[in-house]
Amino acid sequence: MINVLFAALPARWDEFAPHLRSAFDAAGLEVELRQDFAPAEVDYIVYAPNGDLQDFTPYTRCKAVLSLWAGVEQIVTNETLTQPLCRMVDPGLTQAMVEWVTGHVLRYHLGIDANLANQTTWDPVAPPLAQDRHIGILGLGALGAACGQALAQLGFNVHGWSRTEKQIEGLTCHHGDAGLHATLRRSEILTLLLPDTAATTHVLNAETLALMPKGACILNPGRGPLIDDTALLAALDSGQIAHATLDVFRVEPLPAENPYWAHPNVTVTPHIAAATRASTAAGVIAENIHRAEAGAPLHHLVDRTRGY
Amino acid sequence: MINVLFAALPARWDEFAPHLRSAFDAAGLEVELRQDFAPAEVDYIVYAPNGDLQDFTPYTRCKAVLSLWAGVEQIVTNETLTQPLCRMVDPGLTQAMVEWVTGHVLRYHLGIDANLANQTTWDPVAPPLAQDRHIGILGLGALGAACGQALAQLGFNVHGWSRTEKQIEGLTCHHGDAGLHATLRRSEILTLLLPDTAATTHVLNAETLALMPKGACILNPGRGPLIDDTALLAALDSGQIAHATLDVFRVEPLPAENPYWAHPNVTVTPHIAAATRASTAAGVIAENIHRAEAGAPLHHLVDRTRGY
Repeated sequence: MINVLFAALPARWDEFAPHLRSAFDAAGLEVELRQDFAPAEVDYIVYAPNGDLQDFTPYTRCKAVLSLWAGVEQIVTNETLTQPLCRMVDPGLTQAMVEWVTGHVLRYHLGIDANLANQTTWDPVAPPLAQDRHIGILGLGALGAACGQALAQLGFNVHGWSRTEKQIEGLTCHHGDAGLHATLRRSEILTLLLPDTAATTHVLNAETLALMPKGACILNPGRGPLIDDTALLAALDSGQIAHATLDVFRVEPLPAENPYWAHPNVTVTPHIAAATRASTAAGVIAENIHRAEAGAPLHHLVDRTRGY
Repeated sequence: MINVLFAALPARWDEFAPHLRSAFDAAGLEVELRQDFAPAEVDYIVYAPNGDLQDFTPYTRCKAVLSLWAGVEQIVTNETLTQPLCRMVDPGLTQAMVEWVTGHVLRYHLGIDANLANQTTWDPVAPPLAQDRHIGILGLGALGAACGQALAQLGFNVHGWSRTEKQIEGLTCHHGDAGLHATLRRSEILTLLLPDTAATTHVLNAETLALMPKGACILNPGRGPLIDDTALLAALDSGQIAHATLDVFRVEPLPAENPYWAHPNVTVTPHIAAATRASTAAGVIAENIHRAEAGAPLHHLVDRTRGY
């Protein structure tokens, strides 16, 4: 019997427990899944932040901590965590992100907000074709690559940027500092899909926002700290950036007094771009436990020096 | 020398003439392109409605009439037209239609209007995945097939309907009266891309609207007469149809007193879903003239008995 501790908010238990149990069964694993165990009895921890678990020291038998979320910035710096840590790479989450990013890129590309606002006058102005529009994506992990390829499939010119060199079919890939500037200079619509690390904090700041084409639009379904909020608000006020759609924030829920709520050129969405789907995420957790029990390398292992 | 008459609104001349001349050159055709000729000297007519040309009888030498627009309902019934008539199937137009339909389907799928309207409260409700959403497309010509395949590529369940039986990869295809009902019963979001013929008039009427799932959404980038406007307004008022985005109308520009403008659950767009692009359409015209001169069959020849 394998003891798996579910260490996420208790409110998530009802959503995830049935899917996890089905996935363990399907993988042929004999698992005891509970929200409470004596720490020394735990073999694996299914983890999400905001739960009670802060000190991993007593989990002496634990073979891996399996994050329910893609972002691990709230746990990766925990010094008591000596066990292997795996990120969630959920096919349902990737699909949801592709849908959200494609939908909002097309919304900007087609000028849908202006269509919705103008319901009185017949003023036909056809948008350019996707082949004449340049899209930038910062971050070429599983999410960024999938979004970039979906947009390229629709005909857009997609420029992607990652810290280290990558090649992804259908995308023009850039890397390093010079590549970041080259990507930003071309990005009429920019999507942020970088992890939240010391190296990515404020990747969009006064200097980098000024490199973008005047009137560019920004989508942030990634992580709040990627943006210097003060610099973005200034760029929105000056017209350098025409519009931003922000799904993630330093503090969530976004406080009522935050100026993003009331800004006429900002759309706030409540961290819905890509929620982990219990139905698909459970299979990812089960597969990793199956691999660990069989002595195979874990999938999506976090490199603690990079932070993701 | 081949004499080609440009018989569209004079306002279109500046937009199309340079592209047509380049395309004729590229095809190796020696063409005299003008807006006026003695009718008996004309070899081909590039045609759009709303120009002066109504009587084709004196164009005795004319080998083909080449429509600039995809829809030919305003010319196909002209009894003086005895010459072959070709529709426009413009790759730029098809691409533009795919972008417009995909953008508005994702807008409905993701609930973007509700996001835009709610800029005060954090209320995270993730939409279903595309794989759990059923999309219907009426009309599986070049436009309907391309839109359906783009949506299927994004993961949607796409049901397509055509008058006669068709098979299109990635789509569940239906045909005939029974197939129309089966398609409508599944369509959470329905797109109309049928030609405007006697057989398609009022394909959406009180009876067929009632077959759709309650709260379905409708996109009409096809032709205005496909919809019984009175029945659609009643279905919007009752909530049977949650929202409609209409790009085409019986009378365009849509008159200011038309109730669609003011209806809270209707978005009017000014016939922008797919404008013919001079840059790409010119090549289609040049290729057809090249084929006719070489004795090859014309592309996109209209079947006058079907009306498209």
